Amino acid sequence: MHLMRIGATGVEKPVARIDDDTYVDLSDVVTDFDETFFGTGGLDRVRPAVAERTAAGRVSRFAGERVGAPIARPHQILCIGLNYRDHAAETGQAVPDEPILFTKSPNTLVGPNDDVRIPRGSTKPDWEVELGIVISRRTSYLDSIEEARAAIAGYLIVNDVSERAFQMERGGQWAKGKSAETFNPAGPWLATADEIDDVLALDMWLDVNGVRRQDGNTKTMIFDPYVIVHHLSQFMVLEPGDLINTGTPPGVGMGFNPPIWLQAGDVMELGISGLGAQRQHVVGPR
Amino acid sequence: MHLMRIGATGVEKPVARIDDDTYVDLSDVVTDFDETFFGTGGLDRVRPAVAERTAAGRVSRFAGERVGAPIARPHQILCIGLNYRDHAAETGQAVPDEPILFTKSPNTLVGPNDDVRIPRGSTKPDWEVELGIVISRRTSYLDSIEEARAAIAGYLIVNDVSERAFQMERGGQWAKGKSAETFNPAGPWLATADEIDDVLALDMWLDVNGVRRQDGNTKTMIFDPYVIVHHLSQFMVLEPGDLINTGTPPGVGMGFNPPIWLQAGDVMELGISGLGAQRQHVVGPR
Repeated sequence: MHLMRIGATGVEKPVARIDDDTYVDLSDVVTDFDETFFGTGGLDRVRPAVAERTAAGRVSRFAGERVGAPIARPHQILCIGLNYRDHAAETGQAVPDEPILFTKSPNTLVGPNDDVRIPRGSTKPDWEVELGIVISRRTSYLDSIEEARAAIAGYLIVNDVSERAFQMERGGQWAKGKSAETFNPAGPWLATADEIDDVLALDMWLDVNGVRRQDGNTKTMIFDPYVIVHHLSQFMVLEPGDLINTGTPPGVGMGFNPPIWLQAGDVMELGISGLGAQRQHVVGPR
Repeated sequence: MHLMRIGATGVEKPVARIDDDTYVDLSDVVTDFDETFFGTGGLDRVRPAVAERTAAGRVSRFAGERVGAPIARPHQILCIGLNYRDHAAETGQAVPDEPILFTKSPNTLVGPNDDVRIPRGSTKPDWEVELGIVISRRTSYLDSIEEARAAIAGYLIVNDVSERAFQMERGGQWAKGKSAETFNPAGPWLATADEIDDVLALDMWLDVNGVRRQDGNTKTMIFDPYVIVHHLSQFMVLEPGDLINTGTPPGVGMGFNPPIWLQAGDVMELGISGLGAQRQHVVGPR
């Protein structure tokens, strides 16, 4: 299934995408794709409804509604740093021995085509196309990679927008440069895990103003999604609906010489095979 | 007011503490002390109910109920590192120029007397008595210290339990050593801001097995609560009910030579003037 949330911010309607033109409305079956949904077998509950309604022709046509993030605001957004060999190299840092964990404020989550707002005082705003993981159940101390696989509800595109001066030059710990409002566009859809044949063979790309800046593939990840979920579960309890951003391939603005920073008026477009595409206008501080 | 939540985990009842023996039940007035409560003027709504019921003798007696954290699981737990001059010295790190931000998973929040569980693989579990701040409204880009003051709902005790090996030796970024289950005992009560005459003159202490380990006062903070809230609001949007741990005074286990780590069977007792006291048994991994 491809789960989406469409409509105005804060009142998005849960639907299942059939194709670019049509969807099945699920707002009479579930209230939202949130922690309760994932934690109470919601995916199994909506699957027959989607099949039956599709077969019966009970589908609706997209009519230009705003697309929200495909999940409600999660309990936490966890992020893995320096998880592509070439990206670690471009930032001048060593390939890590273990997944590097940092966090973003959960209220950074926005829709895939919503504006990205440069924060006040920003001098180094940057982009990061990433594969996002959504957790399917309350999870801790996983014993195996197989268990980690079962703890993943699905995958989506995220743009892990970053302010490099806030991240690196304002007293340590990356969260400070990762948590400004609008800094985590997600979607357009959550592809359930069964929809992705090989999560380690997904092309990913990001353009700024039509110029290709990132062009990678999940095959160059250092720690794959199963290793990441297994690892994190040793340090904390993951909740259903938690979002994990798994790191970005080479080509971020910080990696150019001289570096390239986002500016108001820029357009970011990004995508991952099987997960759709995002398009954000960059706007100035409020 | 002193707000408390009493009863079994997950079904705590919101009450206002009158004194050590009695409270006013507020469960017919509010569902919980959560983001919605703080964000919709809940403090102003319960204040007259508490006054009227107290005057009318509509009070209940504590009967040995479990005490929960005085707020529901927040949108985020933000933490300030190295915020006491002497604690920065004992860890061998420089006094920071700006507040150091790190985060904990929100599901670390537990009651003030709940067990603290040592995580699997832990070798260096440690304690940190801290003054916690609860945010009263959606807050960003505060213009002044006065505005920051108005954005604080109240104060409480937190024990910012830490695993130093996970924090420092497992790939960087402190969140990894701060987020194990039970790692954020909070309460027993949230004192609304008007209850605290001078937040920069509060004694704070922590004993392990009856031996005084931390003995400090908020007057030695580097960045005071108003500066912290003002500062964080420049980097992210704070939500109503968000919890900020403001840093610990000297005397953590890491600071001793040789260091002293928590062990199963230990008892931690800690308190801050005007905010009550906590007592936790340390238990082994599950």
